Amino acid sequence: MQDKDLVLGIDIGGTKTAFGFVDNKGTIFNFTSIPADSCESAESFVSRLHECITKASIDLPFPYRLCGIGIGSPNAHHERGTIEKMVNLNWGEVVDFIALVRKYYDVPVSIINDAKAVALGEMHFGKARGMKHFLVITLGTGVGGGIVADGHLLHGSSGFAGELGHTMVDPDGRQCRCGKRGCLETYASAAGLKKTVQTLLVERSDPSSLREMKYQEMTSKRIYEMAAEGDVLALEAFDYTARILGMKLADAVAHLSPEAIFLAGGLANAGDILIKPTERYMNKFLFRAYKGTVKLMFSGLEPGKGAILGAAALIRYELKS
Amino acid sequence: MQDKDLVLGIDIGGTKTAFGFVDNKGTIFNFTSIPADSCESAESFVSRLHECITKASIDLPFPYRLCGIGIGSPNAHHERGTIEKMVNLNWGEVVDFIALVRKYYDVPVSIINDAKAVALGEMHFGKARGMKHFLVITLGTGVGGGIVADGHLLHGSSGFAGELGHTMVDPDGRQCRCGKRGCLETYASAAGLKKTVQTLLVERSDPSSLREMKYQEMTSKRIYEMAAEGDVLALEAFDYTARILGMKLADAVAHLSPEAIFLAGGLANAGDILIKPTERYMNKFLFRAYKGTVKLMFSGLEPGKGAILGAAALIRYELKS
Repeated sequence: MQDKDLVLGIDIGGTKTAFGFVDNKGTIFNFTSIPADSCESAESFVSRLHECITKASIDLPFPYRLCGIGIGSPNAHHERGTIEKMVNLNWGEVVDFIALVRKYYDVPVSIINDAKAVALGEMHFGKARGMKHFLVITLGTGVGGGIVADGHLLHGSSGFAGELGHTMVDPDGRQCRCGKRGCLETYASAAGLKKTVQTLLVERSDPSSLREMKYQEMTSKRIYEMAAEGDVLALEAFDYTARILGMKLADAVAHLSPEAIFLAGGLANAGDILIKPTERYMNKFLFRAYKGTVKLMFSGLEPGKGAILGAAALIRYELKS
Repeated sequence: MQDKDLVLGIDIGGTKTAFGFVDNKGTIFNFTSIPADSCESAESFVSRLHECITKASIDLPFPYRLCGIGIGSPNAHHERGTIEKMVNLNWGEVVDFIALVRKYYDVPVSIINDAKAVALGEMHFGKARGMKHFLVITLGTGVGGGIVADGHLLHGSSGFAGELGHTMVDPDGRQCRCGKRGCLETYASAAGLKKTVQTLLVERSDPSSLREMKYQEMTSKRIYEMAAEGDVLALEAFDYTARILGMKLADAVAHLSPEAIFLAGGLANAGDILIKPTERYMNKFLFRAYKGTVKLMFSGLEPGKGAILGAAALIRYELKS
């Protein structure tokens, strides 16, 4: 029997890193998640990651050949092969990540921004198959974007095109970890939703179960569960988030006129409680020429697997070309 | 002597239409401008335009062959060959403009949004030659945009990509002629600047020569002249406009990461009084990954000629392919 051709897809994050072996149909084998360590250097992290990958590879149920490694990470620069100014981790200004990985693996390695990876995953294995113009917005710890225009992932002149999380909602708004104020990320991320709840608890006197919760216990998942149970303030927090997100998505449409916008990331797990009002607001703020031309949808990929699949698609594509 | 190969470039606007015969080097012959008539039907307009073109063609100082006609117009749809919901003119919902023009001319005709035409002009004859990622924003009666990504003009799935004038500044802001509120166009256009002056005259008590002017006499050109003379309120009006424009351009960069942004249109004639503060605000609102990667510049084309040159470039390109 011939060895199975697999690529390794890695999804690096500020709180955890996940990886898996991916075949050419997008099936992920031995998916593994490891926690981040905010004190660790990039060198130590890659050494630890290598050990986990080796362990996971031993358990693969068939003989295989590793053809390449694709990596998705926040702040990754595709051309330079670097991760720059990684947030939450002790990695310094610029890490030549591909060089670090190639110390352990003698196969082609490619890296890309994680939200761009999700866009590639959507294009190759998700609902965007066959679409020429679409965008993905990831709503998680941060907010990221991946833009496909005329069938190609957009990198722009800097390589950093699509940082939709750092478009402006309010120049006097919430402090963003990027140093600016009022970025979309400070509203439409998990932390942003939590801040909105806190503000509503202060400003409003409606009864709410959210008042019985410690600040540390409050997660976007808990807020979503309360909204699902009909908690007025939790629902209001989602409506507030949806209005801002809908407004900024209408702006994105005015730039790019995509056929579809895909929501991904942890906050997207809120389902209809987030997407229904976001769609309503987006349509309200849409310029008339775009009315009826753009669909707002959830990612067609299994939650948490999009970046792995996209990174795998990236390296497969580069191996072919 | 062989006949000279020329194309006709036409720039249609809500207040005037200009045209000229363009050679392959971008030289415009017999540039002509005719006023719009808001009562006239599209059919009558094209008939009148045809007469003016015929007159202008008779005066050409050499024998020539008309190879094609390129048209730039607000609300034009390139693929459909239409002008849709033209503002200020009595043209109804949808005009099949190419069909109207071809009643008079048996040559290839192509039409495109006027701001997109300016982007093409900039790409072929202006400062964007050799650039792969740039955008043009036209600041005139309205505000339009033309985006070039990976070397290609972006149309998007609807054909209307790049309507930057209808991105959102403030959902509770000024009424826009598009039916929405708070669009960039209501601030960064000629009419927007005038409205900003009126607001400042009401809100502030600083002495200003603007107080001596009738509302009808107030044009963006007059406001610019007063700012150039140091009028405090006129300068403040430009600063207010520049802050909003800089903020929205920083948003455009977060989508597209262009190498350069070109300002065109009547308001751009204000020169440094507009571009200097706009650049300062744009850089202030720019996400750190883009700092130092994008230049803000004036269009490299003669004012009022960009759309004609771009429309000419469009039809020449289509004749070749």
